[in-house]
Amino acid sequence: MSKEIERKFLVYKEKLPPLPAPKVIKQGYISGGETTVRVRISNEKAFLTLKGKTKGLTRSEFEYAIPLSDAEAMLQELCIKPFIEKKRYLIEHAGHTWELDIFEGENEGLIVAEIELECEDEPFEKPEWVAEEVSDDPRYRNANLIKHPYGHL
Amino acid sequence: MSKEIERKFLVYKEKLPPLPAPKVIKQGYISGGETTVRVRISNEKAFLTLKGKTKGLTRSEFEYAIPLSDAEAMLQELCIKPFIEKKRYLIEHAGHTWELDIFEGENEGLIVAEIELECEDEPFEKPEWVAEEVSDDPRYRNANLIKHPYGHL
Repeated sequence: MSKEIERKFLVYKEKLPPLPAPKVIKQGYISGGETTVRVRISNEKAFLTLKGKTKGLTRSEFEYAIPLSDAEAMLQELCIKPFIEKKRYLIEHAGHTWELDIFEGENEGLIVAEIELECEDEPFEKPEWVAEEVSDDPRYRNANLIKHPYGHL
Repeated sequence: MSKEIERKFLVYKEKLPPLPAPKVIKQGYISGGETTVRVRISNEKAFLTLKGKTKGLTRSEFEYAIPLSDAEAMLQELCIKPFIEKKRYLIEHAGHTWELDIFEGENEGLIVAEIELECEDEPFEKPEWVAEEVSDDPRYRNANLIKHPYGHL
């Protein structure tokens, strides 16, 4: 088990720097309530991830590597449709790694940036392309973007 | 992934043979709908098991060994309460292994026997202690016994 402490922001698309090669991510949810069970395929590697209820900015997280063929079968047989499809770009800035997610498919048009922290009050510097914080806005949770895609927000 | 084909029966308790040493099982459900996500601790070994919707007698099953400490944390933090607690006895009969589950805790008094088959129409011989079949009765699914324990059936 690990603790995930994450902050999430919208993005000024026009201010983004040139982007590195992305990870191509496809993920689905078996359970999409406050406790989530997620199947993710990221550049041909597959993971099963369970996350507990968010308390403040923190969630318990359990992640296991699983066979790619299992993940593909789970996406088809167990997961709520549609899936989340996005490209993820890792951007270093002032000693932190930002994860920039550019959504595709049903959520095309949505771009968010996340930063993972060691503790809730850890200071960090925001790049100029980072806009409004949406950490507390449930509409931007991936598990909710399945039921209510970005185009309908 | 594997396919689970299982038939479930009630038991004539008074006809049971002398029982071998049991596995002591404690399990909880993170998602308890038609698709289930189960955390099980069986004799100090822990597993995370996902099962798809039942079609006939068959369900897709994905099972992974996980660290015991993860399972204990998941039971406390992610699972629906109460847990299922039972002792499982393996009984060989006419070339098949029967799993006899004697429930404890909230489901004390319930005893069921399950047999796993290779295909839905595989013939098997019922021991004399095996009673009415309940394979199609959702009340006897472990995920439902959490919400509606045996004492309330």
